[in-house]
Amino acid sequence: MKTRAAIAWEAGKPLELAEIDVEGPKAGEVLVKIAATSVCHTDAYTLSGKDPEGLFPSILGHEGAGIVQEVGEGVTSLQPGDHVIPLYTAECGKCKFCLSGKTNLCSAVRATQGQGLMPDGTTRFSLDGKPIHHYMGCSTFSEYTVLPEVSLAKVSREAPLDKICLLGCGVTTGIGAVLNTARVEPGSTVAVFGLGAIGLAVIQGAVMAKASRIIAIDVNPDKFELARQFGATDFVNPKDYADPIQQVIVELTDGGVDYSFECIGNVNVMRSALECCHKGWGESIIIGVAGAGEEISTRPFQLVTGRVWKGSAFGGVKGRSQLPGYVEDYMNGKLKIDEFVTHDMPFEQINEAFELLHAGKSIRTVLHY
Amino acid sequence: MKTRAAIAWEAGKPLELAEIDVEGPKAGEVLVKIAATSVCHTDAYTLSGKDPEGLFPSILGHEGAGIVQEVGEGVTSLQPGDHVIPLYTAECGKCKFCLSGKTNLCSAVRATQGQGLMPDGTTRFSLDGKPIHHYMGCSTFSEYTVLPEVSLAKVSREAPLDKICLLGCGVTTGIGAVLNTARVEPGSTVAVFGLGAIGLAVIQGAVMAKASRIIAIDVNPDKFELARQFGATDFVNPKDYADPIQQVIVELTDGGVDYSFECIGNVNVMRSALECCHKGWGESIIIGVAGAGEEISTRPFQLVTGRVWKGSAFGGVKGRSQLPGYVEDYMNGKLKIDEFVTHDMPFEQINEAFELLHAGKSIRTVLHY
Repeated sequence: MKTRAAIAWEAGKPLELAEIDVEGPKAGEVLVKIAATSVCHTDAYTLSGKDPEGLFPSILGHEGAGIVQEVGEGVTSLQPGDHVIPLYTAECGKCKFCLSGKTNLCSAVRATQGQGLMPDGTTRFSLDGKPIHHYMGCSTFSEYTVLPEVSLAKVSREAPLDKICLLGCGVTTGIGAVLNTARVEPGSTVAVFGLGAIGLAVIQGAVMAKASRIIAIDVNPDKFELARQFGATDFVNPKDYADPIQQVIVELTDGGVDYSFECIGNVNVMRSALECCHKGWGESIIIGVAGAGEEISTRPFQLVTGRVWKGSAFGGVKGRSQLPGYVEDYMNGKLKIDEFVTHDMPFEQINEAFELLHAGKSIRTVLHY
Repeated sequence: MKTRAAIAWEAGKPLELAEIDVEGPKAGEVLVKIAATSVCHTDAYTLSGKDPEGLFPSILGHEGAGIVQEVGEGVTSLQPGDHVIPLYTAECGKCKFCLSGKTNLCSAVRATQGQGLMPDGTTRFSLDGKPIHHYMGCSTFSEYTVLPEVSLAKVSREAPLDKICLLGCGVTTGIGAVLNTARVEPGSTVAVFGLGAIGLAVIQGAVMAKASRIIAIDVNPDKFELARQFGATDFVNPKDYADPIQQVIVELTDGGVDYSFECIGNVNVMRSALECCHKGWGESIIIGVAGAGEEISTRPFQLVTGRVWKGSAFGGVKGRSQLPGYVEDYMNGKLKIDEFVTHDMPFEQINEAFELLHAGKSIRTVLHY
């Protein structure tokens, strides 16, 4: 069948809107009609060409929501009409990782997903017979897309798809990093580096965890007002200080914060985030994705004196098990999503959404098919 | 009064045995007659001059055990005749750190301890009127030494002081890193880098924690037999492999270990120890003390995919609360100490003990006063 899609032909070029071919679902696969998708920095990172694992041509997009159209042989947990959120972190429930009880990093489809292929080693997308790669197992920049059954979370049909699409990455990643990875306790102090969608979601998570003080840090002070609305209590622009920012935060908090989160992908900021943690117990969580080959460093004394360095992918959230609950929380007013949406546009304006992201003018632009 | 002592006059020189002056305890202080002390790599590190915080002249030594002789004004928890282990990590029970429930890094005497002084800012040691610094708040290389009350753990009078002195640093540090910092679960796989006293104590801790597989790693295969006696199950000499050691360990363990411990102080090994951990949950604990200014580094991807980087000081053990129990465990045969003692000597042969340590010929030499 035919589908509208935005093709990433090569690094650094705008996406091309086109009608492409999409094959129906094979065994264990599901055809989904995406209703809405947003654009995340990871899409922009891959499109820029800096992602060493980026493949072209491909259909990008990993933050979406849609409705099941057709299921392949052997698919038992989903049926046409089900509302779903695509998962770039699958949950098979059977692999060593899923069974460990310690991580959300399911290995079921990881190898082929990294190669831009479906689990059988082929692609469902093509144009004029030329295959086009999948991306992060999702490819939400195609109106019709095919995913493995294990890469879809079934959620309430009552929830608006053009809002809950944000649970496919940014919002969940930030909240989950606070609740699952760091497990912030009530009364904790928290520092958040970078006030994009992830940083704002971390602030929301910290409020949910009843943190007593939430320090929002960004070199763009325009971000502070929204951070305040999400619940941040302190605002620091590193450009206002001559001292290293970790020293500023340590002084501001009588020894450092209990938890810090790096939501940018800058290895120097990752170091600052670790070193602004309190001696004896402070934990720093890396969420941002650094450039290829870049390394973090610090003096080991930072760790020997009790700081802990961790990372988080998709907020440690097991998508199929936990996203339905996140959707319920949104419906019950316990979780904010609407506030992340700064722009709504028709899908055809997707390149404009990328431009807004690069200019720092949007938090999330939702594209409607 | 006079006391036998070994003076570190300057970096890189052997210690000088001399009779020096030691003042009696002031308020909150305790005079202890050390019965036995051993020599640890940290003493050697400071004596080498590589420790940027090393002070000279000083009385080194921090792994000892002795008997209280006299207590200063206001001391209530100790009295003459009590058997004690000096603590380089004090436990006041009142500071922000002690009250946090999250760390053993008491701050009560830390500032002056780092300056080689007692809490009132003066030293109790001198020779011909010239002051001599304290070291790590212990200075066990003096037969009579003065410590703050909060820096002494009162232990059973039944225990042999020339064995339990090892609980003052190495044995406790290794076992505590496993039980307190990593909290290794039964069935876990563990990699131990460096098979000195700390590494062997880590192996012992891993056995106590019921680890299923304990991989002992050292470039000196002479260390493997003792590691086997302590309970290691696998033995790896990095020199036997062309591949990076982290890759060797990952292949040996179908994806990496659950916990790794760096017991050397080498920043490159610290990286290997992190990177040999299993994706999704592996935790690496830095115990070794790196050279001044040296830094650890890795790609942040290692953390984002679920590995955790931590450190441990004195094994996370609160000395006054927990060391009495460690002594009881030793007396009840639950904890090995005798096996660490490879050499016994009179105190006067202290420089020989340093030579054995540098040559890798001893695990611990116990010096008897």
